Amino acid sequence: MKIKKKDIIEAQLRINNIIHQTPVLKNQSINRITNTSLFFKCENFQKVGAFKMRGASNVIFSKTKKEKENGFATHSSGNHAQAVALASKLAGTKAHIVMPNNAPEIKKKAVESYGAKIYYCENNEKARDNMCKNVLKKTKSFFVHPYNDYGVIAGQATCFKEMCDDGYNLDYIITPVGGGGLASGTAISAKYFSPKTKIVLAEPKNADDAYQSFLKKRIIPVQNPNTIADGLKTSLGEKTFEIIIKHVENIITVSEEEIISAMKLIWERMKIICEPSCSVPLAAVLKQKKTFQNKKIGIILTGGNVDLKNLPF
Amino acid sequence: MKIKKKDIIEAQLRINNIIHQTPVLKNQSINRITNTSLFFKCENFQKVGAFKMRGASNVIFSKTKKEKENGFATHSSGNHAQAVALASKLAGTKAHIVMPNNAPEIKKKAVESYGAKIYYCENNEKARDNMCKNVLKKTKSFFVHPYNDYGVIAGQATCFKEMCDDGYNLDYIITPVGGGGLASGTAISAKYFSPKTKIVLAEPKNADDAYQSFLKKRIIPVQNPNTIADGLKTSLGEKTFEIIIKHVENIITVSEEEIISAMKLIWERMKIICEPSCSVPLAAVLKQKKTFQNKKIGIILTGGNVDLKNLPF
Repeated sequence: MKIKKKDIIEAQLRINNIIHQTPVLKNQSINRITNTSLFFKCENFQKVGAFKMRGASNVIFSKTKKEKENGFATHSSGNHAQAVALASKLAGTKAHIVMPNNAPEIKKKAVESYGAKIYYCENNEKARDNMCKNVLKKTKSFFVHPYNDYGVIAGQATCFKEMCDDGYNLDYIITPVGGGGLASGTAISAKYFSPKTKIVLAEPKNADDAYQSFLKKRIIPVQNPNTIADGLKTSLGEKTFEIIIKHVENIITVSEEEIISAMKLIWERMKIICEPSCSVPLAAVLKQKKTFQNKKIGIILTGGNVDLKNLPF
Repeated sequence: MKIKKKDIIEAQLRINNIIHQTPVLKNQSINRITNTSLFFKCENFQKVGAFKMRGASNVIFSKTKKEKENGFATHSSGNHAQAVALASKLAGTKAHIVMPNNAPEIKKKAVESYGAKIYYCENNEKARDNMCKNVLKKTKSFFVHPYNDYGVIAGQATCFKEMCDDGYNLDYIITPVGGGGLASGTAISAKYFSPKTKIVLAEPKNADDAYQSFLKKRIIPVQNPNTIADGLKTSLGEKTFEIIIKHVENIITVSEEEIISAMKLIWERMKIICEPSCSVPLAAVLKQKKTFQNKKIGIILTGGNVDLKNLPF
């Protein structure tokens, strides 16, 4: 395996003072509804409001002083952009973020508030890649991929590692899957630190590239995904796919209605704010009640950055 | 003093296995904005979603088996109704709840879901009192007042007692004030368990009966209060007033805009759901920045029951 046990242990030691060790919440009424024991790992309380802070910090803080000098770059309009921006700031260097010019105002402001420089481009892959190339050439900064990077994956793996350290002894761990950084990191963490825990991924039906790729055993990118779980529109990379195909037990897809209804359940019963993306695993548990009944299940609540003016309920 | 130190200690022992010992959250970005160290005691994560579970449980579980037999009654359309309903159920007895017939559907359903019986009346004090009398006469149940009751006050006092047990060593503790159950309970707890902590209350300008009563040193009930902080429309009772006038340092009033803006700050930065009522103390800190700067301040987030379809932002 490309990522070794010690890579995750080192990642945890590296970022422990930079990130939050997020709490794990339980909820009796959701346990009653699902007939399970659920343990919610609250990465919505993480810095920048999402688990992405782990992967970005692991890459950025693994660099030497000289390597950090020219800063870090990425393309993202979401949580990864904020994570690279904040981690760069904490590392005392610059961040260069390529963003589509139609990105929501709130995301632009968040990235700017961490002192990053934003480079706007048209909202398509070619324009984005061109702009990225230009930025990297001009700034000589280091590119931090949102998911298809072993350093990022090892960083995301620290999230489930913390749950293993706490000794929950879970039957299942469920994460949502987009590009697969968290999904593959969690899978490796489980393999090393809790081998009896089965890894299940949850994905929106409307962006089911991981499900299709898992089924056909080759990467099948999704075309124009349209889902409220906007963090999960991305398709798997070859590094994340390779890990997922090897270690994941199953991938469950859910409808938009199922996502919204699970999200509402979390908001109303747990009184916490989570993104549509991180409601997908609970939607999967509600959908496949028989599979999960009486089991101890970990769910990673991936993020809490939502536009309060535009809620689906 | 009518409530002794041992009453609060006993209340805590009595309800410890019935209620949640709620977590205390911190938030770096709100600390930066306010230039303080804030410690949020999250009663929005309490059973029934509010601190009211403490007072109701303390009264109900202090009764003998025989006294419990005919059940418990109250009038409330809010969190206290749910608290009496659930505490009665856990005590193995019945709850009788008098509610105005225009109470929100969501509140009716919540109370019913705990197995309580609802008695509807017109939405005015006279109709409510008449209905209460009838219910008490018919059922011979025990009336649990929402706030003007020493057992209820001692129960609410356990909330700040938990913070004192945790050793936060606060300069200030701020609670919102409506009928004054939590406010007076917190004041007594501070007196006994953390005498150096000053007690400040926060109140909506549009329902400022506690502020007026505190100023004039006599109870001045509010007429037709109109505030988004619907949990704080009630006026002080003579028992809660007596404690507040004696032990509270100051009462700060805030506008509706200030409440909504503080609520938004909590939702966006802390990723937790809280009611308008429990955003009032943070609004007070934001308003009087000079008073509070560099201080260690406890804030009780009183509840998280909001209508997600009707948010103020």
